[in-house]
Amino acid sequence: MTQQGNALDRQLPHGLTDLFYEQAAAKVALERILEETFRRWGYTRIIPPTFEYYESLATDVSPQLQEEMYRFFDREGHILALRPDMTVPVARVVATKLYDQELPLRLYYAGNVFRYEEPQAGRRREFTQAGIELIGAGTPEADAEVVAVAVAALRAMGVTNFQINLGQVAFLQAILSEVGLMNGESRRLEQAIDRKNDVELRMVLADLGITGEAANAIHAIPHLCGGREVLQQAQRLAMNAAARQAIERLEAVYSLLQVEGVAEHVILDLGEIRHMAYYTGISFLGYVEGLGFPICGGGRYDTLIARFGQHLPAVGFALGVERSLLVTRPQVNIAPDVVMQSCRHVGCRALAQAARNRGLRVTVDVLHCAEETLIAHARRLGAPRVICCRGQDRCLLVEGDTRRELSYTAIEEAMDTWSR
Amino acid sequence: MTQQGNALDRQLPHGLTDLFYEQAAAKVALERILEETFRRWGYTRIIPPTFEYYESLATDVSPQLQEEMYRFFDREGHILALRPDMTVPVARVVATKLYDQELPLRLYYAGNVFRYEEPQAGRRREFTQAGIELIGAGTPEADAEVVAVAVAALRAMGVTNFQINLGQVAFLQAILSEVGLMNGESRRLEQAIDRKNDVELRMVLADLGITGEAANAIHAIPHLCGGREVLQQAQRLAMNAAARQAIERLEAVYSLLQVEGVAEHVILDLGEIRHMAYYTGISFLGYVEGLGFPICGGGRYDTLIARFGQHLPAVGFALGVERSLLVTRPQVNIAPDVVMQSCRHVGCRALAQAARNRGLRVTVDVLHCAEETLIAHARRLGAPRVICCRGQDRCLLVEGDTRRELSYTAIEEAMDTWSR
Repeated sequence: MTQQGNALDRQLPHGLTDLFYEQAAAKVALERILEETFRRWGYTRIIPPTFEYYESLATDVSPQLQEEMYRFFDREGHILALRPDMTVPVARVVATKLYDQELPLRLYYAGNVFRYEEPQAGRRREFTQAGIELIGAGTPEADAEVVAVAVAALRAMGVTNFQINLGQVAFLQAILSEVGLMNGESRRLEQAIDRKNDVELRMVLADLGITGEAANAIHAIPHLCGGREVLQQAQRLAMNAAARQAIERLEAVYSLLQVEGVAEHVILDLGEIRHMAYYTGISFLGYVEGLGFPICGGGRYDTLIARFGQHLPAVGFALGVERSLLVTRPQVNIAPDVVMQSCRHVGCRALAQAARNRGLRVTVDVLHCAEETLIAHARRLGAPRVICCRGQDRCLLVEGDTRRELSYTAIEEAMDTWSR
Repeated sequence: MTQQGNALDRQLPHGLTDLFYEQAAAKVALERILEETFRRWGYTRIIPPTFEYYESLATDVSPQLQEEMYRFFDREGHILALRPDMTVPVARVVATKLYDQELPLRLYYAGNVFRYEEPQAGRRREFTQAGIELIGAGTPEADAEVVAVAVAALRAMGVTNFQINLGQVAFLQAILSEVGLMNGESRRLEQAIDRKNDVELRMVLADLGITGEAANAIHAIPHLCGGREVLQQAQRLAMNAAARQAIERLEAVYSLLQVEGVAEHVILDLGEIRHMAYYTGISFLGYVEGLGFPICGGGRYDTLIARFGQHLPAVGFALGVERSLLVTRPQVNIAPDVVMQSCRHVGCRALAQAARNRGLRVTVDVLHCAEETLIAHARRLGAPRVICCRGQDRCLLVEGDTRRELSYTAIEEAMDTWSR
């Protein structure tokens, strides 16, 4: 047992936080808004465990994410890990337990993920992701639905100045297959594209010996960013059937997003190539004005679930709850609606219960406060009302500067006007 | 990266579960009921991190709980642990961040805790606890409030056949202080009392050399179980002031519970001595008919927060969410309210949105299903309605065996009667 005076027993490790009061209430309120959005689009909850075998979680994730996992041992010597994202656990559940269900599956989650990131400003080692997975549909309609739900979620949170950068990983993959590049070799190339760094990109292309049509196309990718015109430009650079199909797919998704009424928020961006190893088709990141990093991201991953034994196409997205709280904060009021004096009258206790039955937040004094002390306490908490016992079926009702002695019945009638 | 064929990558470690569909929805619904109950009693949310320094979490918990913690290292060589309960993290937050706030603090939590328990039937290694902590009030009113909230939570969940076994740890502690027993030596005694095993208890008393009044009192403790009469019996056995005060406190709490209208669920049980090292006053366990283990438990812990540097009395309780789901299950319906055909009409998409704006759960086909295929799919899902596009501002509305071709306007009007 730790004794007093040890430094660590009162500190939190870097990148972890305690939430309470308005901050905690706002986070919960935001999660409810997201869950309700997902529910209205037909998604149902999935809850995987917080940790599981490292081997399950390491499947197909990027080397960086593998490196960032918190690992530990069970007493049988197996390696366990805290989940670093939700998509891989959901893929495992789908492949092992839901593969014979009516397709498509529409699943949503809201849970914490854990990444051992270098300690730097604002980097969290535990954070909450809320998102959806649409499984068993390989169509443009499925792609478009997931982007539309991302837009709906941002709108429901009250975020207005946002854009979705929508890319197509399959386009770059088609070009790379043309030059016979190995998966590992493309990493530097992807980084240069992601950074939109022309000089670096030219150097990497030269190092890898990529020339001609393929080099032209890859060099153009970071600049293929904008409206529908991007699709024609990309189509001209597509040198094989797979590349052309990749752009046709993106065009189909974009058209569906126009019908859905969300294209105003969508920028086509072929330089949007996620680091996640598992994307195979469209991929996207959502940005909010004034926030220097994406608030949400997702894409199609048609090969991940097969790693767990079932061939099922899938597309999904996840939203960072803590990041969302940086740009929008639901209004929350954590003050009691009523503060009551403690007494031995059954009628007073019933009055408290009557208020709670109406959804009101009621606290009853547990510190034997004198009446004026209790009224001052309620004021400090921001509680709009105090009820003090006067015996004989009567109470003092204090609202602001108004004090009235009323019967139980009169107070219960008044409660109906105190709705939150 | 794990390759296919490896056994572990598709399995879940013992004691962990995946929840989805109705099971996941029911768990979420139950958590909402508990949170709403806590909110109405004036409690606000607190969210500590899932893991923290082992030294923080090991403070004052029982040796068994210390042994059961999942421990791991960060890259600076510190020992981290997954939280095995919520009370210790909350105590740390209160002592380090909330000690200067208006008292009392009323905090609630709902979160997962982790214990490495021996694999046996039904033992979980990750489970959800929802509960409250009332901090800064050492009064019987505070004790009674926490028991009353526990009763309110069970009632709100629809549980009816339950009882709260309410004990007083301070009574046994007062007797033990009389015989000068060390803290560690009392462990066997507590176990024998907890098991209500007369023979074992007699042996342990003899082994410890406890005789006379103290032995009589301790031997009687497992039998001090029932209604108000228990208080008189215990008072007769109380051989010092501390023991008498412990019983007076229990009597005060019981009287308050009678006023509160919850005493019908309360059994006084001086043999209810929790294993947790940190209880100092009342302690209780809640039992539901037909369930072989407690569904909730709590008590007063007036010395725990001082371990983190602030002297604050406290009382709280926690409820096992998975255990609760064994005895009560909220009604949930996860089927879509409406299944819609996919099409390229802005009006049809607007209709889907209009339904979602009314809180309805709407899925839109993403598999290019033919009309009859979609209708059969909706039936299998239990969705009561299908809407198929007929072009020119008209749709086919299928409800059960009824099929009607209606205008957008007529369908939107009908929606108001589809409320969930």
